[in-house]
Amino acid sequence: MTISINAAFDSGNIVVENVDGTSARLSIRKDRESDFFQWFHFRVSCAVGDALDLAITGLADSAYPDGWSGYAACASTDRENWFRLDTSYDAKMGGGTLTIQHTAESQILYIAYFAPYSMERHHDLVAQVAECEGVTYRCLGTSLEGQPIDCLEIGTGDTQVWLYARQHPGESMAEWWMEGALEKLIDPADPHARSLRAKCRFHIVPNMNPDGSRRGHLRTNFAGVNLNREWDNPTAERSPEVLAVRNAMDESGVDWAMDVHGDEAIPAVFLAGFEGIPSLKPAQTEKYKAFETALAANTPDFQVDLGYAESAPGQANLSMSTTQLAERFGAVSMTIEMPFKDNRDLPDPVAGWSPERSKLLAHACLATLDQLL
Amino acid sequence: MTISINAAFDSGNIVVENVDGTSARLSIRKDRESDFFQWFHFRVSCAVGDALDLAITGLADSAYPDGWSGYAACASTDRENWFRLDTSYDAKMGGGTLTIQHTAESQILYIAYFAPYSMERHHDLVAQVAECEGVTYRCLGTSLEGQPIDCLEIGTGDTQVWLYARQHPGESMAEWWMEGALEKLIDPADPHARSLRAKCRFHIVPNMNPDGSRRGHLRTNFAGVNLNREWDNPTAERSPEVLAVRNAMDESGVDWAMDVHGDEAIPAVFLAGFEGIPSLKPAQTEKYKAFETALAANTPDFQVDLGYAESAPGQANLSMSTTQLAERFGAVSMTIEMPFKDNRDLPDPVAGWSPERSKLLAHACLATLDQLL
Amino acid sequence: MTISINAAFDSGNIVVENVDGTSARLSIRKDRESDFFQWFHFRVSCAVGDALDLAITGLADSAYPDGWSGYAACASTDRENWFRLDTSYDAKMGGGTLTIQHTAESQILYIAYFAPYSMERHHDLVAQVAECEGVTYRCLGTSLEGQPIDCLEIGTGDTQVWLYARQHPGESMAEWWMEGALEKLIDPADPHARSLRAKCRFHIVPNMNPDGSRRGHLRTNFAGVNLNREWDNPTAERSPEVLAVRNAMDESGVDWAMDVHGDEAIPAVFLAGFEGIPSLKPAQTEKYKAFETALAANTPDFQVDLGYAESAPGQANLSMSTTQLAERFGAVSMTIEMPFKDNRDLPDPVAGWSPERSKLLAHACLATLDQLL
Amino acid sequence: MTISINAAFDSGNIVVENVDGTSARLSIRKDRESDFFQWFHFRVSCAVGDALDLAITGLADSAYPDGWSGYAACASTDRENWFRLDTSYDAKMGGGTLTIQHTAESQILYIAYFAPYSMERHHDLVAQVAECEGVTYRCLGTSLEGQPIDCLEIGTGDTQVWLYARQHPGESMAEWWMEGALEKLIDPADPHARSLRAKCRFHIVPNMNPDGSRRGHLRTNFAGVNLNREWDNPTAERSPEVLAVRNAMDESGVDWAMDVHGDEAIPAVFLAGFEGIPSLKPAQTEKYKAFETALAANTPDFQVDLGYAESAPGQANLSMSTTQLAERFGAVSMTIEMPFKDNRDLPDPVAGWSPERSKLLAHACLATLDQLL
Ligand SMILES: [Ca+2]
Ligand SMILES: [Ca+2]
Ligand SMILES: [Ca+2]
Ligand SMILES: [Ca+2]
Repeated sequence: MTISINAAFDSGNIVVENVDGTSARLSIRKDRESDFFQWFHFRVSCAVGDALDLAITGLADSAYPDGWSGYAACASTDRENWFRLDTSYDAKMGGGTLTIQHTAESQILYIAYFAPYSMERHHDLVAQVAECEGVTYRCLGTSLEGQPIDCLEIGTGDTQVWLYARQHPGESMAEWWMEGALEKLIDPADPHARSLRAKCRFHIVPNMNPDGSRRGHLRTNFAGVNLNREWDNPTAERSPEVLAVRNAMDESGVDWAMDVHGDEAIPAVFLAGFEGIPSLKPAQTEKYKAFETALAANTPDFQVDLGYAESAPGQANLSMSTTQLAERFGAVSMTIEMPFKDNRDLPDPVAGWSPERSKLLAHACLATLDQLL
Repeated sequence: MTISINAAFDSGNIVVENVDGTSARLSIRKDRESDFFQWFHFRVSCAVGDALDLAITGLADSAYPDGWSGYAACASTDRENWFRLDTSYDAKMGGGTLTIQHTAESQILYIAYFAPYSMERHHDLVAQVAECEGVTYRCLGTSLEGQPIDCLEIGTGDTQVWLYARQHPGESMAEWWMEGALEKLIDPADPHARSLRAKCRFHIVPNMNPDGSRRGHLRTNFAGVNLNREWDNPTAERSPEVLAVRNAMDESGVDWAMDVHGDEAIPAVFLAGFEGIPSLKPAQTEKYKAFETALAANTPDFQVDLGYAESAPGQANLSMSTTQLAERFGAVSMTIEMPFKDNRDLPDPVAGWSPERSKLLAHACLATLDQLL
Repeated sequence: MTISINAAFDSGNIVVENVDGTSARLSIRKDRESDFFQWFHFRVSCAVGDALDLAITGLADSAYPDGWSGYAACASTDRENWFRLDTSYDAKMGGGTLTIQHTAESQILYIAYFAPYSMERHHDLVAQVAECEGVTYRCLGTSLEGQPIDCLEIGTGDTQVWLYARQHPGESMAEWWMEGALEKLIDPADPHARSLRAKCRFHIVPNMNPDGSRRGHLRTNFAGVNLNREWDNPTAERSPEVLAVRNAMDESGVDWAMDVHGDEAIPAVFLAGFEGIPSLKPAQTEKYKAFETALAANTPDFQVDLGYAESAPGQANLSMSTTQLAERFGAVSMTIEMPFKDNRDLPDPVAGWSPERSKLLAHACLATLDQLL
Repeated sequence: MTISINAAFDSGNIVVENVDGTSARLSIRKDRESDFFQWFHFRVSCAVGDALDLAITGLADSAYPDGWSGYAACASTDRENWFRLDTSYDAKMGGGTLTIQHTAESQILYIAYFAPYSMERHHDLVAQVAECEGVTYRCLGTSLEGQPIDCLEIGTGDTQVWLYARQHPGESMAEWWMEGALEKLIDPADPHARSLRAKCRFHIVPNMNPDGSRRGHLRTNFAGVNLNREWDNPTAERSPEVLAVRNAMDESGVDWAMDVHGDEAIPAVFLAGFEGIPSLKPAQTEKYKAFETALAANTPDFQVDLGYAESAPGQANLSMSTTQLAERFGAVSMTIEMPFKDNRDLPDPVAGWSPERSKLLAHACLATLDQLL
């Protein structure tokens, strides 16, 4: 039997170049109005026992070619439990080819760059959290395609904390992190949550880029715009998603901010900060460093060795949210990066970095915040 | 606070004409390339306690203007449990206006013509059933927008039974019926299922019109085509969904067929048959009538008084699936119609006709089939 | 490693004669103050891969020696999912020996005569049903050991229907049947339930013998009394459980009654009636026969060929509940018998007769009752 | 209607002195062969709206008369969700009377000293954890009534960690803590669990006193013996439960030990250590103090101000497990005490200290252990 491949669903992205029996040659569609591509998500239908041999080609031109070496593709038979497949990368073959080989144990196999977080699940999450006692829902605005920018607010304290995710829509681990954060924050028994709800006002935007999410983009919105380069000057035409959130931040002020991301190349969880902003204050840096140190003590899944190079003094790119918020509000702001690959220091060959680990990382981040406040 | 209305999600459909505080004037978008409209599905965000007053106007031109009188809108706060809202219809106001009034008990309220069945839920269903022992998955083809026409096959017997639904995508109860049918058929303990799996080969297409479903259509596919008028001559250009299914039927043959629908106007569950086909055989009619009689004995939710007028001898419209299959295969074929309103004979003011009742009706239909075989 | 066997828990019953490696010689403890024994329930702890060889001896003296031939023991690793084990019976060895052989796939294996229904699960069921709208809870009295005789009442109609189970505590399928009956009757969507709630007043006693249940008895209460031989003259000293229920029946009257049981020897589901009662009325017999016929049409798991011999006219034993209620109230009363073995006509080598099938049988019994009323 | 009170179930304990309408005078049965009493657990059946007025008398003679002031009784309608009731204590009335007043919102209300943890739930937990990859089950011995002393072993490291609970059976929060600990330790995604499984060998005894648990005891086993005064000289006659566990500890050695308890009087979570043992080593004390400090940093539900007075040097009572293990093995051993009342520092008037909080405390204890190793 010849396998069949389909990606016509929420966040689906694959181009079928050729299918031959149980082998296929595939490529990835670019983000609309953009040259970025890296996210893939498709369904294979096949027979149990098929020796699947799937080659995703042309990856030397992908957004992060360093992302493929050491990476293993994610898969699920039931769309709930995700595991990793045997995967290898050859930079020289077919313009950069990722080869996935798997003996099918089911007739339907979903394969993705990371476990997807659909807009339907997003709406389930928002509706169910909005019903919880003490939670306020706000629609901050709409995306270019008219999807709501949903914001959930929790807590009665004075410290303004903003959590937001998925500026880069293909980094779906960021919304799993959000699901974990929300579960913890609404837990009536959790002592950190109870403490944080008394100290803080949380403003939580689980998905800042619904259009890119639904379309299976890696990095941009409907207009092909990288939202995390718009924070100095968001516009209704290019980046209404950022404009809506930044306007709401201007109303509330921002004391702490966490911008949740995935990183394609680095096999670790790490933070990126705001060291290069013009107005940098020692107390601000100190709190950031204290958070980073405490988080490293709080979870073996976080580390401080691997990460991005710091900006030189005054050289921060203020179009990014973390630097913009640090500069604009004096906030302790941070980018939280999780790997597409695995955590090098605590590897799990079966699951790799996973939705469950993303959720537990969110728990640790919130516990750490509680410790510092 | 002013309420906010959004429909930019799977099967969403509403046009916001005007919002004033907690009141809104709305209308329904037509199916693409078509004049049909009746399905609506949108989200209201508001404050608890808001006196919502929502007017959907222009309904005199809807596909089934008789569908509005005696109808109550469906709503959910958590997207799982659906209930009915206070609803009234004034045919003379605003070109036919449905008025929904509700004091909000939550900050988010989903409102729809009937409890939606999303494509994500569809894919969950297909993937999970495909993993069950004894189930074969087949992709019969793709829709105009490239979505798969999924078919699940169960059973080792010789009687060929085809179950298919949602030719008319706004009739979402039809896919709830399918979920009920599949749950029963894969139940390892159910005696009817065990008996049927031995007697029959089931071919089950839970959704024949994924494009219309996702787009929030009432009645047509991406090309504005009513699929249930294409069975005499389906084409790859207009109706590949029907072509794919009919080709597969030609391979297997069809002994029994159930085409699952919702009816906008009639407040009852009823069958429609194939009495006007040229080749009508007494045994065929007899089996159909026996099924109808037995089903009425098997569930208080089915009846035989209300329904469509029968075609005169030889006057059947062979572009419809039920008649086409009866004529083409000598099948005992039937259209199963469930109400958007409620079952007049067993009304439930809280839930009206519901997903749960649709699923239980499927159980009764399968038990009845087992009795007759 | 030597296996370890324990039965010191709810409904546990085994005597360990000898353990040698992964083999054990066992016997069954008699019901307190009685010679009846047949129910067993114990836990084996072992190593994965152990070749378990368990011999239950002395069964020629058990209550139903014909129960062992063709019987397979029930087992579970997680206490939720129950399956059958390889089992054989040798009437001549060791005074009648049942041999269970199984290669352990888990470290803990529960083995029982039938899937147990614990008193904790009973209390969960009662508490959760008692919270449902329209349900009245009554404590009808207490057992000899002080446990409550719980009764749940549902429905607003005039027809008085009594459902009661587990007079014989080792027949645990009877309480699974009850769980199925209660689930259906409280389902807000189920059309039979909605119809029955309007026509009837149900009085439901899920467990008439909690003392015997907890103690792992087959057939008697704390005093060694077979409750189903006490209905002509129940006493506070010997059978307060029956006295409590019969007194409540005297208050309400009884139109229909179902006494739910398991049968050790016959591999089928069948009814037993009241044909030998002095006051037998044709209409009463007719309704009973109509129920039996309709039930056979409604579920492939019921049949009318196998069963008990009927009593001769006037020869009914009025100490049994079915005959007593038929005589005392003119009720259409019946004993529903399910097999410990399997249903010969629809065998399932994996599960045999099971909790799930018991629950589905209850659904069919209630649907049938609705049809006849 | 007159209410009905029953306690004839797992861990039930109440004596009904008198019932008058919706009021009752009650007392608590002593532990068998002992004068200890404090645990209660009973079921009230009543009508919705009943003004329940329940007086538990004679409490001046209870084991911990200081436990009643500031205490609120626990209740549940569904046996899953537990909440606190309006409760007051008058030391001078009726020999010490706890008065519970509540307007019934359900027909069945379970009331207990703390949310119970039944032996059935215990067996579910043990069977389900024993099936997890990497878990070894051992039956260490049996209680005086023949119940198994279940031990679950996890981890491949060299550090021997013993977790054991419910020496005092009425301290049911201790087994909820165990459920939380086991859930975390078997979680394939949890980074602390993954780290701990590599460093340690866990030996986990969720319930050391099954006889007392089932019988509704506060503090002793079947023989009326306080197991936590037997560790210097456990015997098969008086304390086989301790003997079995201590023998297994002698085999494995003990590096860290947590003995989980509830405290009746002190409204806080705290540790008790081993400061008075003869062989006290500075490093041992240091690790204990480091754990206590880190735990206080890790959860707002733990504190170090309230607690027991420390023993003077050399004055430790070596019959208690914590001191015995510290002395015998040089272990870092600790008694973890949770309140029956509430955590004074983070009070929750609705739930008080709860099963959920007990489970989260276990998570924090394990995270803390991972930090220190
Ligand atoms: Ca990113
Ligand atoms: Ca239709
Ligand atoms: Ca029986
Ligand atoms: Ca204690």
